[in-house]
Amino acid sequence: MNRTEDSDALAQQVLAIAQNARAASLVLATTPTAAKNAALERLAQLLQSHSAELLDANAQDLAEASTNGLSAAQIDRLTLSTERLEKLAHSVREVAALPDPVGEIIDESTRPNGLHLRRLRVPIGVIGIIYEARPNVTIDCAILCLKSGNAAILRGGKECFHTNTALAALITRALADTGLPAAAAQLIPTTDRAALTHLLKLDSHIHCIIPRGGESLIRFVTAHSTIPVIKHYNGVCFVYVDAAADLAMAQRILVNAKTQRPGVCNAAEQLLVHHSIAATFLPAAARALREAAAVELRCDPASAALLAAADIPHLAATDADYRTEFLSQTLAIRIVEDLETAIATINRDSSGHTETIITADRAAAQRFQAAVDSAAVLWNASTRFSDGFEFGLGAEIGISTDRLHARGPMGLRELCSYKWIGDGSGQIRA
Amino acid sequence: MNRTEDSDALAQQVLAIAQNARAASLVLATTPTAAKNAALERLAQLLQSHSAELLDANAQDLAEASTNGLSAAQIDRLTLSTERLEKLAHSVREVAALPDPVGEIIDESTRPNGLHLRRLRVPIGVIGIIYEARPNVTIDCAILCLKSGNAAILRGGKECFHTNTALAALITRALADTGLPAAAAQLIPTTDRAALTHLLKLDSHIHCIIPRGGESLIRFVTAHSTIPVIKHYNGVCFVYVDAAADLAMAQRILVNAKTQRPGVCNAAEQLLVHHSIAATFLPAAARALREAAAVELRCDPASAALLAAADIPHLAATDADYRTEFLSQTLAIRIVEDLETAIATINRDSSGHTETIITADRAAAQRFQAAVDSAAVLWNASTRFSDGFEFGLGAEIGISTDRLHARGPMGLRELCSYKWIGDGSGQIRA
Repeated sequence: MNRTEDSDALAQQVLAIAQNARAASLVLATTPTAAKNAALERLAQLLQSHSAELLDANAQDLAEASTNGLSAAQIDRLTLSTERLEKLAHSVREVAALPDPVGEIIDESTRPNGLHLRRLRVPIGVIGIIYEARPNVTIDCAILCLKSGNAAILRGGKECFHTNTALAALITRALADTGLPAAAAQLIPTTDRAALTHLLKLDSHIHCIIPRGGESLIRFVTAHSTIPVIKHYNGVCFVYVDAAADLAMAQRILVNAKTQRPGVCNAAEQLLVHHSIAATFLPAAARALREAAAVELRCDPASAALLAAADIPHLAATDADYRTEFLSQTLAIRIVEDLETAIATINRDSSGHTETIITADRAAAQRFQAAVDSAAVLWNASTRFSDGFEFGLGAEIGISTDRLHARGPMGLRELCSYKWIGDGSGQIRA
Repeated sequence: MNRTEDSDALAQQVLAIAQNARAASLVLATTPTAAKNAALERLAQLLQSHSAELLDANAQDLAEASTNGLSAAQIDRLTLSTERLEKLAHSVREVAALPDPVGEIIDESTRPNGLHLRRLRVPIGVIGIIYEARPNVTIDCAILCLKSGNAAILRGGKECFHTNTALAALITRALADTGLPAAAAQLIPTTDRAALTHLLKLDSHIHCIIPRGGESLIRFVTAHSTIPVIKHYNGVCFVYVDAAADLAMAQRILVNAKTQRPGVCNAAEQLLVHHSIAATFLPAAARALREAAAVELRCDPASAALLAAADIPHLAATDADYRTEFLSQTLAIRIVEDLETAIATINRDSSGHTETIITADRAAAQRFQAAVDSAAVLWNASTRFSDGFEFGLGAEIGISTDRLHARGPMGLRELCSYKWIGDGSGQIRA
């Protein structure tokens, strides 16, 4: 075959996957909860009984990891172990135990003409998940889509291709063993970028794309997709310590938000301090951050002066630092004149993920929560709580920084659409 | 200026509009209901007191209408009159009278750690409306966005440019007169396609695009936008007359769905008839359609045979007819073997807008409503009920055929997002 024939064949292959997914989604939409749960239970069993095969496949990926230029952290995320597979099986059973969102009545009414209306929660249809090197994403996304009645098309990264292929084979088998359509969850069997480009144009078969990964992947998907995309950009999360803060509480929350797990999107990256308490709060808080995790402090001139006077190591912040998701033990610090300046600063520089105000002043907290335009706006709590499990969703497919459909943590309900059901008795329109 | 400088200047102009809209949206998000309603009331007054100016501007557009190649129907939609302006002012006051969706608590919970969570309805932010030649869309969209706390960027068609400019001037004045930011609703002051292309890339300032118009406009927007789009494609709506239908009711509903207002998206375009009642139902129903509005009947071979035997004029349908939104007095007709065939046919050929089943068999209706994958699935009622007013939303900015965010009629709530508000007492994550 020449290049054009190759490309046509690839386009046909991706189209067939999308068509099969669409057909499967129509079956899944009316599949009873028990049947979906049986498939999940079967998958959990297979993950346990086929651990040797999965570890072999994973070893192939790991053998290529240095050729692929993966960092130590990336290799760690890629690595499976018997223990991690046990955890994965456990997470599948947890999703099986969650309530099924499909069929929930969102609201209902009877119109003056007697037409009875209900909005019913239904699956979105076909969801494409585009992700990078973590094999657990393959299972997480497949099971959350299945539980919510959606067909999933999974397109993972090349660094994880052997592992993903082995996992997808078990998913297919679990579906077949329990009588569900095999196309309910399909892995794109190539990591060719051209396949992704084809996929992103199939808007008559695929209803939603969720990219999970770095910003460049998300930007590529957004630029090329004619299918609606739910984005999960980064988290440039702010802690604002107000004039009326309990300073001991503020320090505990700041240290937790920054250091408890700095590599995740809901960790704090930015600190704003009200000028009136900065001289008291900042040196002590900075010492606590240094002691907890040797946090690198990048300061505006005013905060730098306070830390210099207290002999605490720090650096001068650049403009870019104020909008950076460090994902490491680094914190940018600014002193602000007042609450309104803090709000305006956040609305200008934040990524709209999660912010928190520390204050004993209820009016200040309420103004902050009303005016800050982010997915989650907390008061006297760590930004680290902003996730699907901590917010009680029972599961999480990601955290949306978009405003349409879902904002903040997305669980099973957020993987659903709705439809209008109207029961009449012969009504016609005048 | 040379061409590149022109293009740069246009890009800068569009960017400034988007930035000003974003700034205005942050003010609107916390603007009290009374202030928004005052601006709406002021606009209603201005529409009445400035009718002469508006009619002058409209006359300019009408003078260019034949040069622009508008059809009689398009010219009718473009034409303003004192009576239409009175209606427009009335509709502004009706929106003012609707409940404000902003600030509604969608749900709330207290987590085991004491963190109290609420999901609060908030404006989406900045909404871009891309539309064609109808001047009332300028007012409709501006007032619905304002009431729901969103800044609006309006981009109308060139056929309506003078009228839109005059309407936008009144909107700006109503905002200024009542102390709201002038950038809360802005008209793009050019109909240059390049300005639209720039606009559709400004995803850091604009949060949602709603295209209203023909399919080619919607496809252009979808292909070029990096901003999330809520689409309002066409309505290829089906009436399915089941074996157990009350045939008199079926005929009434069919005639209403097809002929009461054939040019709108919720009019019926497709008829499926269960084979067991076709010989009884079809000739009578066809005669009723012919009598009501000389409906052109495009038939599959089985239905053609029945109409031929009854001497009723009809045509042979083409394959394309079965997926066509005629928007005229034309109906495509097929006879189906059973309920499941009807469902599969609809899920293959419909646009997913609105379908109805006519039957006295509750189980058949429930199966149809569960399995048909459309925004609205009715039972014993005309498809013509599928709109925001008839469904009780009090307003309608369009009817979404997408599955994300909003499906079916979109009112004020559907112009909102939400945010998570969390009140703690010092919670940190373990």
